[in-house]
Amino acid sequence: MKSVAGLLPEWESLSLAEQVAQMVVVRASGYLFDHQIQYPAWEPPAAVLQHWLQDLGVGGVILLGGSAGELALRSQQLQAWAKIPLLIAADIEEGVGQRFSGATWFPPPMAIGAVFRKDACKALEYAEQMGGIIASEALAIGINWVLAPVVDVNNNPSNPVINVRAFGETPEEVSQLASAFIRGAKAYPVLTTAKHFPGHGDTAVDSHLDLPVLPHSPARLAEIELLPFQEAIRPASGVDAVMSAHLLIPAWDAERPATLSHPILTQLLRQQLGFEGLIVTDALVMGAIANRYGANEAPVLAVEAGADILLMPVDPTGAIQAVCDAVAQGRISEARIRASVERIWTAKRRVQQGTAQPLVETRAIASGVQKQGRSPFLPHLLQLAQPHALATAANIVREALVVHGEIPLLPSQGNLRNLIVVDDALNCDFLDKQAPAVVLPKQHGYQLQLLDPNTTLIPGWVFYHKSGLDVQPTLLQLFIRGNPFRGSAGLTPLAQDLFKKLLGNAELQALVIYGSPYLLEQFLPHLPPNIPCVFSYGQMPAAQAIALEVLFGSPTLSI
Amino acid sequence: MKSVAGLLPEWESLSLAEQVAQMVVVRASGYLFDHQIQYPAWEPPAAVLQHWLQDLGVGGVILLGGSAGELALRSQQLQAWAKIPLLIAADIEEGVGQRFSGATWFPPPMAIGAVFRKDACKALEYAEQMGGIIASEALAIGINWVLAPVVDVNNNPSNPVINVRAFGETPEEVSQLASAFIRGAKAYPVLTTAKHFPGHGDTAVDSHLDLPVLPHSPARLAEIELLPFQEAIRPASGVDAVMSAHLLIPAWDAERPATLSHPILTQLLRQQLGFEGLIVTDALVMGAIANRYGANEAPVLAVEAGADILLMPVDPTGAIQAVCDAVAQGRISEARIRASVERIWTAKRRVQQGTAQPLVETRAIASGVQKQGRSPFLPHLLQLAQPHALATAANIVREALVVHGEIPLLPSQGNLRNLIVVDDALNCDFLDKQAPAVVLPKQHGYQLQLLDPNTTLIPGWVFYHKSGLDVQPTLLQLFIRGNPFRGSAGLTPLAQDLFKKLLGNAELQALVIYGSPYLLEQFLPHLPPNIPCVFSYGQMPAAQAIALEVLFGSPTLSI
Repeated sequence: MKSVAGLLPEWESLSLAEQVAQMVVVRASGYLFDHQIQYPAWEPPAAVLQHWLQDLGVGGVILLGGSAGELALRSQQLQAWAKIPLLIAADIEEGVGQRFSGATWFPPPMAIGAVFRKDACKALEYAEQMGGIIASEALAIGINWVLAPVVDVNNNPSNPVINVRAFGETPEEVSQLASAFIRGAKAYPVLTTAKHFPGHGDTAVDSHLDLPVLPHSPARLAEIELLPFQEAIRPASGVDAVMSAHLLIPAWDAERPATLSHPILTQLLRQQLGFEGLIVTDALVMGAIANRYGANEAPVLAVEAGADILLMPVDPTGAIQAVCDAVAQGRISEARIRASVERIWTAKRRVQQGTAQPLVETRAIASGVQKQGRSPFLPHLLQLAQPHALATAANIVREALVVHGEIPLLPSQGNLRNLIVVDDALNCDFLDKQAPAVVLPKQHGYQLQLLDPNTTLIPGWVFYHKSGLDVQPTLLQLFIRGNPFRGSAGLTPLAQDLFKKLLGNAELQALVIYGSPYLLEQFLPHLPPNIPCVFSYGQMPAAQAIALEVLFGSPTLSI
Repeated sequence: MKSVAGLLPEWESLSLAEQVAQMVVVRASGYLFDHQIQYPAWEPPAAVLQHWLQDLGVGGVILLGGSAGELALRSQQLQAWAKIPLLIAADIEEGVGQRFSGATWFPPPMAIGAVFRKDACKALEYAEQMGGIIASEALAIGINWVLAPVVDVNNNPSNPVINVRAFGETPEEVSQLASAFIRGAKAYPVLTTAKHFPGHGDTAVDSHLDLPVLPHSPARLAEIELLPFQEAIRPASGVDAVMSAHLLIPAWDAERPATLSHPILTQLLRQQLGFEGLIVTDALVMGAIANRYGANEAPVLAVEAGADILLMPVDPTGAIQAVCDAVAQGRISEARIRASVERIWTAKRRVQQGTAQPLVETRAIASGVQKQGRSPFLPHLLQLAQPHALATAANIVREALVVHGEIPLLPSQGNLRNLIVVDDALNCDFLDKQAPAVVLPKQHGYQLQLLDPNTTLIPGWVFYHKSGLDVQPTLLQLFIRGNPFRGSAGLTPLAQDLFKKLLGNAELQALVIYGSPYLLEQFLPHLPPNIPCVFSYGQMPAAQAIALEVLFGSPTLSI
């Protein structure tokens, strides 16, 4: 542990520009090679990234993409480039497996909220286990900053960006479950993050696309939105970081969104609520901020407002320069920068226990396994997706399942169709040729039919039903949930249209919905009671197997 | 190097069962975790695999699936489990990136054949470079046995299983290019494999599905099929292994397929052609063998025929037992086993230079980078997909491109459609939301339409064209090539139907075909000369960018 601790210099030895650079967290691809970069507009090639880490000395990286194995290598590469040990962050609200294949993939937090309403004790246990498993799996692949839990209260069913990412719809359930999650994660030297301050649950606009407004009174905000943050901040929970929301809240600041608001970040969060940890902005590249305030002015405003960490500024070099200029101009005091860097150092010291672990083990196995060329962190990596972790994820899915109608589905003969509808066939990592939603109905004689808006939207060419042909009993599986950037939590016209047509033709044999409970509510009133219907919060393969086993009444496929 | 060499015991110290186990190569998933296994029927879970390696002592593993980063970890895990250093093989005929994402992905060998007919010297250089790059990238992730080159002469355009995997259609071009490939690969301590003996190019049946028959005379076989093998075997080429085909060749053996034929493997290949390296069967689980000869009898027959390596027997434990029983019964002599094990030891000694390399480097960097927790093999891994490798792959694609009609595509306005047709939308690793075939037309105003047989085959529901609506100028992109298990190298009815309809409606604006040159030949006669058409051998993202840049006449997307 000593050798790693030794790598963190006294922050006082850093120049102002180096101090400001430590406040910046840049986005990078989790893949190892430039030609694999998925979002070239946001993810720099290796040479640029290495320059940011090595020469500018930025303080952290947020990673997206790649498998867990690749990420373990990638995080080592980044740490080797950095002159000061990095915070390595990831949006792993639903498990490391949500972003990095191979690790455990949980259903969205609202599944635990559903369990909570039936058995609060059990749900709290799940939330704590989930926090612990996510923290330990993050650590195993070099992530030391978990950008979770979401503590927003999703009291707006048409919220396109939070939705099932929230633990629930009331401040009480969110507070309790999020705090249990933090408790579980705190057992490991990994940072946790309550987001999105002061509460992103009651919006119908996606801040990835535009700036939502929260028109409520201070009293109402204190009663609903703030409660889970207060609970997360309490020393008993002790969340390490709070992420700001790109939301306009006129009750507190008529002019600036929370991310750039001194009344909200400093007066409310830091002073009134007494939060002493890291205040991190949500991504500064997001439309609501970058388009309105300017690429390099937004970071200055965020620091002025009270942020310690500038997440994903449009131009890291420009952002550092702009903040340094603001200090030179007297807009920002040096003490303000120092206060942030001190908080960052506190956080980095805490996670150093984690980065030290692999080294300790390396020595232990150096004489043995490594002789055969085995990687020192392979043993850590292989702690991912352990049976107890997979079982916890599966149990949450199972207990949050909603089942209606006549179950199991009665066996039928003939021309069976398995109609799967997804948001985007080229972008659904929960579905491949081996996914239970594909394989299990096939075992029961169903022929696959895959549709997404891109497979059907030929203006001028339309589907129609040839009357007189055989009726095809159809299992309809909808994978639809509110996703950031899609701008809607609602039902696609495609899914709605198919549902109506199948119902009208008496072809709908069973319905499975993976994702949003709000969609289930749209379908249920129209569903005859004899047609079985299963709803699952999870979309991942394990969730498909669980839902279909219920529907077919037999565990034909092991998870 | 000494330490690793020390791990290979004298083979004489092994029991008979241990010797036979060294002749077995089992299939395993390249992914790290059991829940990621893609082919549960063929890929054992970790506990079973570890038992095979640790307790039975099988001699090698063939891997499929996972990223290059994951495979680097996986191969270390397997070597750590094995009691004797493993041969780790992979079907990487088109580059490590063909199977393991992140590494360099070449077009199929027939692309080099196309270059050969224009410029033999350049093509030979490409083949040698490709061999060298594949070998070095294999080595970087722990693969020491390249199951390439294919030296079959593809003189049957409807060959469903070889097709563009061959270097060409004549024995001369195949001989020269395959030998150049071997020459390139031999610069590295990696085994190469000429396949599929005595020649799989002239079949219209996929041996994954059934047993093809090669009805030719010995004279014709010697003239066409055998030539490239003779060339590969010559000391100047020095291929390390020859893989047998599951083919019936009545001219030499009226009863048994090549894989199980003593006249073919021993009399012809070993004695007449004088091949002294490893004779490896093609996968024994394949239908043509497993279904006809029995799971445990087939391995015995293969050893009797002269095979040194039993690839993917249905049941490794049963196969080892059956071969040992055959020795006990006198069907197979102990000397026969010893001869194979000696050849395997020769091969393992050769590849040990490779497995030793990372250790040497480990020591060199131990005091520096590793302090920061960096993996000792990370520097090796990062040698994948280097600029010169990506450029070689791109150059081959570019020079093998076939272009017809009026290029570039003239700009047009309005209701533009990018219609992509694939074999299986859930199983195409060359296409995702960031693929040039999707992104580049979008930049030109085209709306994506994705189709595969599963998106359209609703009997009772059909597409039709609403006359009276706007005509939609359509860019048609077909990703179709002969693939093993698909059982056909031909055009799907879907693609054919779409092509005719678009042509009939005067909507076809341009055609791009990725994959099979034989398909191009089916389309060209029907294509008016003013409609531009581009054919590319490669299907991977880099090939899409190259084809579309030619079509659109501007390099809007960098590769």
